[in-house]
Amino acid sequence: MQRSLTIALDMMGGDYGPRSSIPAAVEAVHLHPTLTLILCGNEQLLQEQLSQLDALQHPRLKIQHCTQIVTNADEPASALRNKKDASMRIALDLVKQGKAQACVSSGNTGALFAMAHYVLKMLPGIKRPALISSVPTETKKPVYLLDLGANVHCDAHTLYQFGIMGSVVARESQDIEHPRVSLLNIGSEDIKGHEGIKEAAQMMQKNPALNYTGYSEGSDIFSGKSDVIVCEGFVGNVALKTCEGIAKLIMHKMTRALKKHLLYRGLALILMPVIKKIYKKVNPDQYNGASLVGLRGIVVKSHGNASASAFLAAINEAVREVQRQLPEKIQTAFAEHEPMQDAS
Amino acid sequence: MQRSLTIALDMMGGDYGPRSSIPAAVEAVHLHPTLTLILCGNEQLLQEQLSQLDALQHPRLKIQHCTQIVTNADEPASALRNKKDASMRIALDLVKQGKAQACVSSGNTGALFAMAHYVLKMLPGIKRPALISSVPTETKKPVYLLDLGANVHCDAHTLYQFGIMGSVVARESQDIEHPRVSLLNIGSEDIKGHEGIKEAAQMMQKNPALNYTGYSEGSDIFSGKSDVIVCEGFVGNVALKTCEGIAKLIMHKMTRALKKHLLYRGLALILMPVIKKIYKKVNPDQYNGASLVGLRGIVVKSHGNASASAFLAAINEAVREVQRQLPEKIQTAFAEHEPMQDAS
Repeated sequence: MQRSLTIALDMMGGDYGPRSSIPAAVEAVHLHPTLTLILCGNEQLLQEQLSQLDALQHPRLKIQHCTQIVTNADEPASALRNKKDASMRIALDLVKQGKAQACVSSGNTGALFAMAHYVLKMLPGIKRPALISSVPTETKKPVYLLDLGANVHCDAHTLYQFGIMGSVVARESQDIEHPRVSLLNIGSEDIKGHEGIKEAAQMMQKNPALNYTGYSEGSDIFSGKSDVIVCEGFVGNVALKTCEGIAKLIMHKMTRALKKHLLYRGLALILMPVIKKIYKKVNPDQYNGASLVGLRGIVVKSHGNASASAFLAAINEAVREVQRQLPEKIQTAFAEHEPMQDAS
Repeated sequence: MQRSLTIALDMMGGDYGPRSSIPAAVEAVHLHPTLTLILCGNEQLLQEQLSQLDALQHPRLKIQHCTQIVTNADEPASALRNKKDASMRIALDLVKQGKAQACVSSGNTGALFAMAHYVLKMLPGIKRPALISSVPTETKKPVYLLDLGANVHCDAHTLYQFGIMGSVVARESQDIEHPRVSLLNIGSEDIKGHEGIKEAAQMMQKNPALNYTGYSEGSDIFSGKSDVIVCEGFVGNVALKTCEGIAKLIMHKMTRALKKHLLYRGLALILMPVIKKIYKKVNPDQYNGASLVGLRGIVVKSHGNASASAFLAAINEAVREVQRQLPEKIQTAFAEHEPMQDAS
């Protein structure tokens, strides 16, 4: 049933490089029988890690040797100019050349964003790409948050376009016919408001193809009232990372409370797995990949601190996006529903 | 030892009005033997609630009848113009007139901000007031976050001034000689950064009286690495409310996980109080009051959804700020350490 597909992986990114990306890749080809992975990175390092897992001869794991690595210290502009043989860049080039249908990286976000933008280009009519990810809610369906940091500030039209892109992602991923889209705002709208958000709200309201449901506050993100929540990259990044921080804090306090009393110590053994599972669920930044949408290609960003299982989750996300033909669906939505396409 | 002090309360704000503010007031005068409270609001309603608690004749609970109420639907400008006899306004007027040393309200934030700004005025040299509150960390000391929504956007100099004010609050409240101050930023500084934040960082670095320790990310807020974290009001509000949302989500998932299995049901009885205590701790927006700093008077804002215990916590916070003479300390800090005071 599954069509054969090829994904390019930047193996050298993140805090652990091949130590987490190789086990993830090996597991991914095991899970997906029609998946071929092109492993971009230092050939020798990759071979060493592969042979440790007895996977050196795997027919669907192909090494693409690269001489450079993008580090977290690299400025995006300089990485773009000087690191044309970096694993990150080569993985993107493979998508551009049609040799891979998607790429996954856990490397320097800024550099990945600049390179992806430069190599893959925007879909017609879309102003800016956005980083999108889902977070869990009190209901069974997650909510999609964008932008998570690709654009520090966004004008009204960009926020409006993010609403359309988010709506397509939620529709395709969660099988929701008319995803409820809202804009993140602060409680007291009456305090001197944020003009860009008010203008974006008007644009969303005017588009009958978009199911715009009004403003959300930070406290509403996880309620399940919205399928898509749109905000500027700075705000989205802070919100997502704050989740990570508070989840860590709750884990910390909980563990301490459980260890404090002798009675609880026994319970802790039973309860810690439950708590850890919840922690993982509410710690989306660590757990899921985030996707860069709006480009002529699929790019999934895994957390810099990604474990093998988190990197695997990002590969799985890339597989799903290829199967859903996400860029094509976004392009169709813009062609049909973006009345202001030519005005931008 | 305690000096006698008087605090004016806006009794009519928030979702519950006198139903939560009266029990809080009765408890507060019980806790603080030298505290007098001026209860601003509808006399009849207040008397009814007081008599239910047998506190109608309490010598330190004085009713100040007001004919108007600021609602959440009121625009700040219109409330300022048209609601001069509202309980919120009268409470602030009492501070201005020196009849009370602080005021507490759980009403419309925008209106409270506009009225407090107009009635009390800024301390010399300070550009904007900020809403500040503490949130728990993994260490014993909390971290102070500002601004939490009084100013949607802030320029570099305003952020810099917030750093000074936050530093004074942390020093006075937590007895820290040189509080570590940081600026909230997003992970990849290298992504086209936020100019105002970069400029504020330079200003903070140049002031030797300020212990500036660099950028923090959302995930660092609760780590205890900083005593004060400075950001724009929009971002701070989203971060704080996201905490509220995620704490609610974790409670929800935890309760469900505990109820699901028969084995856990018994444990739930023992553990739910622990979980609830943690929830309260990590849900600062509900629990503590937030203070408006930078004004010539003390204003504590309680959550709109404040229960009696949350409103009591806000009264307690106001008592502490009076005892610490917070506005005077902020004024001294600005006179001593704000080199750019005249340049603004």
